[in-house]
Amino acid sequence: MTSSHSRPDWLRTHTCGELREANVGQSVVLNGWVDARRDHGGIYFVDLRDRYGITQVTLTPEQSDALPFSTEFVLGVHGKVVQRENPNPDRPTGLIEVRTERIEVLSPSPTPPIDIIDNLDAAVDTRLRYRYLDLRRGPLQRNLIHRSKFIASIRRAFEDQEFIEVETPVLTRATPEGARDYLVPSRVHPGQFYALPQSPQIFKQILMVAGYDRYFQVARCFRDEDLRADRQPEFTQLDMEMSFVHEEDVFAVWEGVMGRAFRENMGLELPQTFPRMRWEEAMDRFGSDKPDTRFGMELVDLAEWVPTCEFRVFQGALEAGGRVMAIRVPGGGSSVSRGQLKSLESAAKDLGAKGLAWWKPGEEGGAAGPVAKFMDGAVGEELLALTAVDGATTDGDLLLFGADAERIVWRVLGDLRLRLARQLDLLPPATGDGAQWNFLWVTHFPMFEFDEAAGRYFSSHHPFTCPEDETLGGDEPDVSKLVSRAYDLVLNGWELGSGSIRIHRQDVQARVFELLGIDASEQQLKFGFLLEALSYGAPPHGGFAVGLDRLVALTLGLDSIRDVVAFPKTTSAADLMCGAPSRVAPDQLAEVHVAPAGKALERDGSA
Amino acid sequence: MTSSHSRPDWLRTHTCGELREANVGQSVVLNGWVDARRDHGGIYFVDLRDRYGITQVTLTPEQSDALPFSTEFVLGVHGKVVQRENPNPDRPTGLIEVRTERIEVLSPSPTPPIDIIDNLDAAVDTRLRYRYLDLRRGPLQRNLIHRSKFIASIRRAFEDQEFIEVETPVLTRATPEGARDYLVPSRVHPGQFYALPQSPQIFKQILMVAGYDRYFQVARCFRDEDLRADRQPEFTQLDMEMSFVHEEDVFAVWEGVMGRAFRENMGLELPQTFPRMRWEEAMDRFGSDKPDTRFGMELVDLAEWVPTCEFRVFQGALEAGGRVMAIRVPGGGSSVSRGQLKSLESAAKDLGAKGLAWWKPGEEGGAAGPVAKFMDGAVGEELLALTAVDGATTDGDLLLFGADAERIVWRVLGDLRLRLARQLDLLPPATGDGAQWNFLWVTHFPMFEFDEAAGRYFSSHHPFTCPEDETLGGDEPDVSKLVSRAYDLVLNGWELGSGSIRIHRQDVQARVFELLGIDASEQQLKFGFLLEALSYGAPPHGGFAVGLDRLVALTLGLDSIRDVVAFPKTTSAADLMCGAPSRVAPDQLAEVHVAPAGKALERDGSA
Repeated sequence: MTSSHSRPDWLRTHTCGELREANVGQSVVLNGWVDARRDHGGIYFVDLRDRYGITQVTLTPEQSDALPFSTEFVLGVHGKVVQRENPNPDRPTGLIEVRTERIEVLSPSPTPPIDIIDNLDAAVDTRLRYRYLDLRRGPLQRNLIHRSKFIASIRRAFEDQEFIEVETPVLTRATPEGARDYLVPSRVHPGQFYALPQSPQIFKQILMVAGYDRYFQVARCFRDEDLRADRQPEFTQLDMEMSFVHEEDVFAVWEGVMGRAFRENMGLELPQTFPRMRWEEAMDRFGSDKPDTRFGMELVDLAEWVPTCEFRVFQGALEAGGRVMAIRVPGGGSSVSRGQLKSLESAAKDLGAKGLAWWKPGEEGGAAGPVAKFMDGAVGEELLALTAVDGATTDGDLLLFGADAERIVWRVLGDLRLRLARQLDLLPPATGDGAQWNFLWVTHFPMFEFDEAAGRYFSSHHPFTCPEDETLGGDEPDVSKLVSRAYDLVLNGWELGSGSIRIHRQDVQARVFELLGIDASEQQLKFGFLLEALSYGAPPHGGFAVGLDRLVALTLGLDSIRDVVAFPKTTSAADLMCGAPSRVAPDQLAEVHVAPAGKALERDGSA
Repeated sequence: MTSSHSRPDWLRTHTCGELREANVGQSVVLNGWVDARRDHGGIYFVDLRDRYGITQVTLTPEQSDALPFSTEFVLGVHGKVVQRENPNPDRPTGLIEVRTERIEVLSPSPTPPIDIIDNLDAAVDTRLRYRYLDLRRGPLQRNLIHRSKFIASIRRAFEDQEFIEVETPVLTRATPEGARDYLVPSRVHPGQFYALPQSPQIFKQILMVAGYDRYFQVARCFRDEDLRADRQPEFTQLDMEMSFVHEEDVFAVWEGVMGRAFRENMGLELPQTFPRMRWEEAMDRFGSDKPDTRFGMELVDLAEWVPTCEFRVFQGALEAGGRVMAIRVPGGGSSVSRGQLKSLESAAKDLGAKGLAWWKPGEEGGAAGPVAKFMDGAVGEELLALTAVDGATTDGDLLLFGADAERIVWRVLGDLRLRLARQLDLLPPATGDGAQWNFLWVTHFPMFEFDEAAGRYFSSHHPFTCPEDETLGGDEPDVSKLVSRAYDLVLNGWELGSGSIRIHRQDVQARVFELLGIDASEQQLKFGFLLEALSYGAPPHGGFAVGLDRLVALTLGLDSIRDVVAFPKTTSAADLMCGAPSRVAPDQLAEVHVAPAGKALERDGSA
């Protein structure tokens, strides 16, 4: 009786990606899945697959007949490595094959409901239902391996800069200002609930108050929101915070981190520093706080030109305190059809515009557009000079105008700019040769935003963001004009993450809550412990968080984060594989002192 | 208007742990907390503290008077590095001090409710309530920094062995067999609930079915159990799984991982392989499945000796199918008093023994113990020879006996052995010089354990554990005798983690469920997706998980995991700092289709 376990003889000696010419003549054991099998000239060929590669195995008809198997069976193959007669140069193992001496089935498989192939065309729900088969496919394996290595690089970059990883609670307190929380009823405290964190924001600030100086965490976060295609109810962010810093210190850390992750995983050298741009400049030039700077078609302010033009709509917009701006679409005179202009106008209207003025300076009559008649002579010449890209003026261009309240002009032209870039194929490839990685820091965001529906101001970032002016405009501030020390990191038009220098003074924090309409007693109830913590010697601090699912997807050129998440949920937040959420036994609910209510009762009257 | 931020002049040029003699003469800025201040010979000395160290700062009385501050204020100190007149060799910065030129208060602080000192004697609840102050103390900072670095070493060890980290869901399906789940009501699916994972067990097996071959994850796990002092409702484990392996492969990976983490963080060289011991041997020698092998006092089987002794109780125990065993306490004749024996007997009774027989062979009469009269002559000589430690027999020893059903004898003597080791100070120091790190693999656990209360068998490990005998004893198995391929890693008497080779055959898995009393339809309902996944070519696989909180605490010589968790909860699962759990607004509950019930209503009739 020994406590050691002897090695089973079917255990692999090599992986399916490992054998080379140098191994010829060796006796080996391989374990793997049957990727394909074919019969050719009286020999059976099997492609045996594992995570590391594919190796060709040959069987005699007798061996094959003695042990029936088909694709996705798991085999143990004992054999000898031999030179291949017909080498396959596309495969690292392509110079050899394994001549079977003995074979055994380690696990059988029926025909799988989806094919284990790279270019699968199957319904999303089927893929999610059989996720263990979907995850066997090459692209998903490569994505998840890349994800693991990419995040490992990021983590090491933080560790090597003296950041320490601290794990913050998942069972925590409901977030008063933010998205909807996931709630967890307490068994020990009847009628009370934990909430899953939307981010570790308050905990990381507490860690700064506690003197940890440099914190990071790969943190799971939760938001119970209606999901769009590229959102998940739980997601992973690289969360970090630093003490005794200003904006440039945070930027420098992240530039180093991204540089390392791109170098180690993609062989790319990013610039040592990323451009910085004020929020207002981003809006004015790109109509977006997350500008895609990989192409031009920037917005042009026409305020000085408008008085020379007799088009009343433009003048009216300026008189009403709004803006008039244009984008110039190179070659759009011919590449953008009348039909496309119609759909662009309809998009503009959906975004709040009253219409869409356009001008094709190279065309005549109606084809030149409804506002062409205001562009005669010097007026038009001047406009073409103003909007010229790199000094070049082409007759065949298209000009699109926005004339409205500033927010609407930005929103509409920013959106049309992106639409046209896609339609006209102006974007470089998302990955591989020719891909561009335009990182950009956007800074100086507005402190507050007015929410029309709620009829009050909300924090643009979050209520812990430090204002540029710590007096907050004094006693009678114009809240709409206050600028914050928030910043975003943008990559190719995607917001990768956001952060800010935080408020470290209790009085400033209390004043910000006040401006948000949270009175002293509500502050105590909701944020009492944070205000108290800030009172005990809080260091100036700031931080940042990056959504890792999105970042990893972008580095792979993927649109959807679903292909970089091992077990994603559907847009109705369901896990189709394991069947979550699900009904639970009534006594489980009774233990945590809740009962079904509302719609839960309608559907299940007996509960 | 620039988008770059200029450096505030109070920002540190150096940390408080950085300045040395080589910096003398430099102008520097330090930021930190006032650790202490004292007035000595007309000069004010301030110890300025941050995570990196403490630097002495000097002020003139005028500077000090101009800006009142006390301990835990955050200061910005501008000054010049000078040689110290009275060097402090115990401090890395002890050869220099900073002569203040200008000073500013970055944050004030009232007198904190707990002292920021290493040896704090404060109520646990006060420490948890003001955790941000507690976390400022040196021991906690060192613990959390050690934790971060120790886990980073473990992670790199896995990464360097081709393991990939895959994040598994936190919002998942209730676990049918296990501890109590934390539940999360679904908003989108009324009446349905997610559960927080007790471990990623099923997901990691699914990843093996999906061909990921080597998986690991630093995973948060959740159990809604009544908490003992060293448990937390959420905890962190290093979870891993491998395909195409047997036990020794898993052991070798972990031996490498632990070796690296101990080498990198503690400067200790662990043995290349850890001892292996069968469960039965562990029980027979130590009365425990997690034996502390740092000291002797092993259990000795007296089955062959008992017939020579006329003590009826011993003979009766054997006749009833039980065991008679003893432990011999070196020097216990004098070091264990009559009073201590009484309390040992009471402990034995609490553990199910009917009493505690003992013998002090060096004593006479009543002092020798109630069973001494059965030990006359050769009977006693023989017993002393049997229980002799390393052949040495001392008259001054103490023998304690267990005579009962096997489980009770093991439990009682195993427990007394540990009690006596602590009482008699037989244990080496928990950390530092002289500490021993006795890792041990315990193998060959029983497959099932009978639960008297529930009246049925449960899996000793979990129901996915592979049996040694895949036929499971055939059609009429003696379930109590089946041995599993589960294994534990034990360190100095603590179970660090457990794992097993898993069942990869659907038929074996279904049979194990059946033996557990789970019929086919219940299997489908609860484990349908796992059984289905196993049917599609599942590789043989096995894995392991280690509780990181406990492991980190042990490496620091700490009894409680609370000192290695940044934001621990109380034994009633409450977070005293942020106030979780808490009441939530009724409309938040309505949104997720639950209502307060039971005790929650009694306490809060209006809800």
